[in-house]
Amino acid sequence: MSETQRARLIGMTGSLRAGSYSNAVLETLAEKFAAVADFTIWDLAPVPPYNQDFEGDKRPPPVKALLAAIDAADGVVLCAPEFNHSIPGVLRNALDWASRPAFTSVMAYKPVAIMATSRGPLGGARCLEHMKVALDSMLARVVLARECIITACADKVRDGRLVDETSLGFACGVVEELLREIRLRAGASRAAAG
Amino acid sequence: MSETQRARLIGMTGSLRAGSYSNAVLETLAEKFAAVADFTIWDLAPVPPYNQDFEGDKRPPPVKALLAAIDAADGVVLCAPEFNHSIPGVLRNALDWASRPAFTSVMAYKPVAIMATSRGPLGGARCLEHMKVALDSMLARVVLARECIITACADKVRDGRLVDETSLGFACGVVEELLREIRLRAGASRAAAG
Amino acid sequence: MSETQRARLIGMTGSLRAGSYSNAVLETLAEKFAAVADFTIWDLAPVPPYNQDFEGDKRPPPVKALLAAIDAADGVVLCAPEFNHSIPGVLRNALDWASRPAFTSVMAYKPVAIMATSRGPLGGARCLEHMKVALDSMLARVVLARECIITACADKVRDGRLVDETSLGFACGVVEELLREIRLRAGASRAAAG
Amino acid sequence: MSETQRARLIGMTGSLRAGSYSNAVLETLAEKFAAVADFTIWDLAPVPPYNQDFEGDKRPPPVKALLAAIDAADGVVLCAPEFNHSIPGVLRNALDWASRPAFTSVMAYKPVAIMATSRGPLGGARCLEHMKVALDSMLARVVLARECIITACADKVRDGRLVDETSLGFACGVVEELLREIRLRAGASRAAAG
Repeated sequence: MSETQRARLIGMTGSLRAGSYSNAVLETLAEKFAAVADFTIWDLAPVPPYNQDFEGDKRPPPVKALLAAIDAADGVVLCAPEFNHSIPGVLRNALDWASRPAFTSVMAYKPVAIMATSRGPLGGARCLEHMKVALDSMLARVVLARECIITACADKVRDGRLVDETSLGFACGVVEELLREIRLRAGASRAAAG
Repeated sequence: MSETQRARLIGMTGSLRAGSYSNAVLETLAEKFAAVADFTIWDLAPVPPYNQDFEGDKRPPPVKALLAAIDAADGVVLCAPEFNHSIPGVLRNALDWASRPAFTSVMAYKPVAIMATSRGPLGGARCLEHMKVALDSMLARVVLARECIITACADKVRDGRLVDETSLGFACGVVEELLREIRLRAGASRAAAG
Repeated sequence: MSETQRARLIGMTGSLRAGSYSNAVLETLAEKFAAVADFTIWDLAPVPPYNQDFEGDKRPPPVKALLAAIDAADGVVLCAPEFNHSIPGVLRNALDWASRPAFTSVMAYKPVAIMATSRGPLGGARCLEHMKVALDSMLARVVLARECIITACADKVRDGRLVDETSLGFACGVVEELLREIRLRAGASRAAAG
Repeated sequence: MSETQRARLIGMTGSLRAGSYSNAVLETLAEKFAAVADFTIWDLAPVPPYNQDFEGDKRPPPVKALLAAIDAADGVVLCAPEFNHSIPGVLRNALDWASRPAFTSVMAYKPVAIMATSRGPLGGARCLEHMKVALDSMLARVVLARECIITACADKVRDGRLVDETSLGFACGVVEELLREIRLRAGASRAAAG
């Protein structure tokens, strides 16, 4: 990506319910950054359970589509609800597919922005920690930014959009850091190549 | 369960591949404890991705079957490969279903034994840690025992059975502790009731 | 401990500042349970940095005193502020001393109740998770209870006492569970002995 | 740091025993990179227990010295033994001091390389995970590299030096990545300034 090009971002949540707060956050971000980024929110519902016997060419079509989309993206945005003090199984399952082959997958060195949501007042912190651990394991490049944990979402999401200004500020801050990292790495690659 | 009754155990791995080492560990344990426990290994392949819009009566049939089986069991045995420094998405997804409603699910206060496998020399520790975190969150009763982490499984599993005596000793130790905990709690319940 | 005997509890926080919220929580609990438990709050300030070359008989006197106190206690109550998404170094250092020799230390099989405090709205969850991980590693018996995470402590602590009723309810709930566990284990020991 | 300047690195372990494997790893790295980096191994023994009442100007002299050294360094190398499934309390205590004030401390945006050691075959992974979590919390820039976990250290360290070639390769790989990150950031700063 050059500095004048638009960034291609792919977003995933791991929440499949219709009124998902995490999806609302991603929709809001897609609108906010519409001038500088093409932001695709990927539906993980069709991704089947990970099975190591079906890697490489044997990957099911929804998995191939997901991996191609990640590969084509300049950066990934993960926003997930905290389930059981961790990330949703649905998101982890998608990452299980996306993380192979180890260390050379489409996730390796891919810039990633992360954020977490929760209905209650305490959730989100452990979700974020477990996202980082998983992403570190696959050598994804989690961007360094003030943590974005959006608690009490029922009060902050309305009509499918994040309307709490403070939370939105944190969420935008993480995406801006993602865009900065994408440009820095692109510049470093050009410098190395040229 | 009285002291003369057989324990009913349900095992899950989260690994779907045909030659799964984790399944081999559970099969071996089922045989080892055949005299004192009915040990059912549950196939998680049919469990659909968790969706909060389909809880309670709306649960899909494979989810209802899984939850009924956990409910009927005296204890649960989880043995999982480490994926991305955590547990497999498939296992987490099953736990996402099983953990609702929060604090009163079929997992609440259920005695659980945990163990981890890995192909390489370093894996397993973080899988075990993340299993504990998830189980704590749903108030499951993880039994206290020396950790069972089986690394380098390709050398220790043969013909679908765990053949390494040291590893098998640790695995059996955890299950024995599970049976002891089941009996202790059953005894306490009877004392309270009687 | 028989059912008519008082429980001996030892509490630690890892916070050394004069107006520590965590100490306030322990002081409040000591008063609340004064009728049934002797609750000693241990000052960790004199405990030197852990050094493996000074174990066993070579332990410094403040370490010997701490370990003897834990050994004599029926249960331990840990209440710590979240520092850097984990527990304070001061508390961890005390646990480093207390956890040796591995698996047979004064912490092994010791019933432990845990709780976390934070000044801000998000802290505490990861502190609690890391406490559990450390305690699991030394085979301490963390009691199963609804999590006690006391956020925004500046509003909930006054004159060195926890005055927020909801938080106090959670804190008392964890200690009650600790006392129940102590009695259950004591009963099981007597039954085994008798 | 320009590309022709030497990097100033500071190393810490958290292990105080005389024959520390982690110190041996750092000593070995200091020698390996002597041509391109000044590598100071900092002794954490004099650092007193963290007390929030003594921040800013009130910091004890050994804390002031540590923070000044971190501030002056281009990068930090942490190598720690796994204690109780986490990092040593001694190291965490040093980080508690170094991480204040939150988000603007000497650790914020500081490039950091991490590695873990253990005596046994399984340790190290959780130490590394907890290091990352702590460093993320203070916005330190943990460099992205294949994990360096050195198990069974008694066989790999001789006469105070890491002599296992494979482990040394991983350790050097992490430090090389640290130097690359330091140069990338320095270059980006100059480009922004110039």
